[in-house]
Amino acid sequence: MSKIAILPGDGIGPEITAQAVRVLDALGESFEMEQAEVGGAGYAAHGHPLPESTLKLAKQADAVLFGAVGDYQYDTLERALRPEQAILGLRKELGLFANLRPAILYPELAGASTLKPEVVSGLDILIIRELTGDIYFGKPRGVRECPDGPFKGQREGFDTMRYAEGEIRRIAHVAFQAARKRDKRVTSVDKANVLETFQFWRDIVTDVHKEYQDVALEHMYVDNAAMQLVRAPKKFDVIVTGNMFGDILSDAAAMLTGSIGMLPSASLDANNKGLYEPSHGSAPDIAGKGIANPLATILSAAMMLRFSLGKLEQADRIETAVKTVLKQGLRTADIFEDGTQRVSTEQMGDAVVRAL
Amino acid sequence: MSKIAILPGDGIGPEITAQAVRVLDALGESFEMEQAEVGGAGYAAHGHPLPESTLKLAKQADAVLFGAVGDYQYDTLERALRPEQAILGLRKELGLFANLRPAILYPELAGASTLKPEVVSGLDILIIRELTGDIYFGKPRGVRECPDGPFKGQREGFDTMRYAEGEIRRIAHVAFQAARKRDKRVTSVDKANVLETFQFWRDIVTDVHKEYQDVALEHMYVDNAAMQLVRAPKKFDVIVTGNMFGDILSDAAAMLTGSIGMLPSASLDANNKGLYEPSHGSAPDIAGKGIANPLATILSAAMMLRFSLGKLEQADRIETAVKTVLKQGLRTADIFEDGTQRVSTEQMGDAVVRAL
Ligand SMILES: CC(C)[C@H](C(=O)O)[C@@H](O)C(=O)O
Ligand SMILES: CC(C)[C@H](C(=O)O)[C@@H](O)C(=O)O
Repeated sequence: MSKIAILPGDGIGPEITAQAVRVLDALGESFEMEQAEVGGAGYAAHGHPLPESTLKLAKQADAVLFGAVGDYQYDTLERALRPEQAILGLRKELGLFANLRPAILYPELAGASTLKPEVVSGLDILIIRELTGDIYFGKPRGVRECPDGPFKGQREGFDTMRYAEGEIRRIAHVAFQAARKRDKRVTSVDKANVLETFQFWRDIVTDVHKEYQDVALEHMYVDNAAMQLVRAPKKFDVIVTGNMFGDILSDAAAMLTGSIGMLPSASLDANNKGLYEPSHGSAPDIAGKGIANPLATILSAAMMLRFSLGKLEQADRIETAVKTVLKQGLRTADIFEDGTQRVSTEQMGDAVVRAL
Repeated sequence: MSKIAILPGDGIGPEITAQAVRVLDALGESFEMEQAEVGGAGYAAHGHPLPESTLKLAKQADAVLFGAVGDYQYDTLERALRPEQAILGLRKELGLFANLRPAILYPELAGASTLKPEVVSGLDILIIRELTGDIYFGKPRGVRECPDGPFKGQREGFDTMRYAEGEIRRIAHVAFQAARKRDKRVTSVDKANVLETFQFWRDIVTDVHKEYQDVALEHMYVDNAAMQLVRAPKKFDVIVTGNMFGDILSDAAAMLTGSIGMLPSASLDANNKGLYEPSHGSAPDIAGKGIANPLATILSAAMMLRFSLGKLEQADRIETAVKTVLKQGLRTADIFEDGTQRVSTEQMGDAVVRAL
């Protein structure tokens, strides 16, 4: 029996995760689900955003369903204890190097975008962000005395960007394989004109591409990619990039849809074990009001069934159910428009369960 | 008599720069203008993208008017000889640490944006990008043997991100002072939740802010900033950020306007000497066709008059003339819409000269 670790976290995390759990329960499969505190909730209960017991559970489980972390009262903690360290720690400890973030605009929600409908309607791109390398974890880092140059002797903050060959190879394989199931086009985003790390990235991606001659590969500088996402986002199929650029571009791409409350994500290790979470954050301002959109989390559960638990049919069932409730005109506050019906977090969960 | 170095560069660079020079000539002031090769043209003439003679001229001049660099035939050169090294070299050698990039949407061009008119019409934000620090120039960098971790012994590409206290202080001052002349709001964009460099950045910007209590300061993570630029760009006034994040965000912001052919930029040193260039690139695909938009370069010349040459009235004259030609309905191909009149690069130059 598959074991799922449920980590609701902070803010709206518990409300939206609860609805995803209901949907999983309604599938008629039997999963072993166990819950643990993470983020601010982890700190409150155990003095650390990623308590040992939570990490242990996550390691034992076949997959992790994650809500969101972060809340005002933890903002003043020292960095090592802040909620977001939990997500960085889980990525590193579980080796979750491949972050898959689809940016899809459901036809029913085309009006929610700040972009003109013709620019975004039907948008369906997949951003693959490397998640355990780059400047996120590179060492050395810290604050030191500036060793040379015009600011010698002053304090300076510094970090190390880095990518080893094997790290680039494995994420490139993920991208080319994903593209094979889609429109067979990969855009690798780098800054090879300035950074040694990303000239190296470009060289390795080009080399891996030799094994995927049926997939088209294009290289694009990150500044240009940021422009093209605004100008003509539908031209992309799969985008693959590093951790830092991926952080920025995947959020920009999500916002193009205008409905970030709809977008799931998967973070996978080398054996398709994964952590699944909505692309949006913990939204502490609306927590506890019962108005948050649970669909991104429900769709994350669908990704979990597909990628980690091998239940492709059940994944399809959930995705179809979500499309059905959208067609029925049900909307949480974040995607509400005139002529649709505003529902609560729980009512949205009810509707998906019914549509199954 | 002020001395201006004219560096046309590659692609459409020469055509657009020529029109800006005509406009400067038409002001009735006397400038000493001297021209030199840069970028691919520098390499072709002198074997280096930033020839010694060009650098010397730029150093002697009071200001530099720069076209654009890059063309297909230089793409296969080794990195150190590629055209874009000229712009990196000029920034470093001239100490041009403050890049000012306005993103303005002229009411006449609101239709050109891919965003809905209500989201962008009247957009007027100023992005201030630090230009000589960060991961662009930090050392060490290169390809080495990975020293530790699971990829130990493999090759890895690496770079160093860094900001010294004095570098952050001076760009923060530029931002707060610019905000004082505008809506008195600064958004400092960082990634303090992950990077030591940008936690340090946040601390120093907060400290400099004590001297500008009449200006509101907000800190924002770069991923969120990328989202907010798409969601509600008009909420920003001045954005200040590092070299790498600024590269990405300023291009995204430019593209929001849909008319990047209209956007100038200034790169200033500590004494208001500066390099002025359009925000767009060298567009080699349309070079020599006489269809490029010279207005960004003409507006860059206006910024030069204002910031480096102390000719505020002449700067205003040029900006007013540009508004006039837009009102007259004249449009180069990139901003052409039904109901307007399509003109060539030179005709656009003519029109601005006439409007003066
Ligand atoms: C919270 C933060 C550390 C994290 C990141 O930068 O990766 C977040 O922005 C994300 O994208 O999941
Ligand atoms: C050409 C390149 C080195 C440069 C940069 O990254 O700074 C360009 O993108 C810019 O923004 O001026």
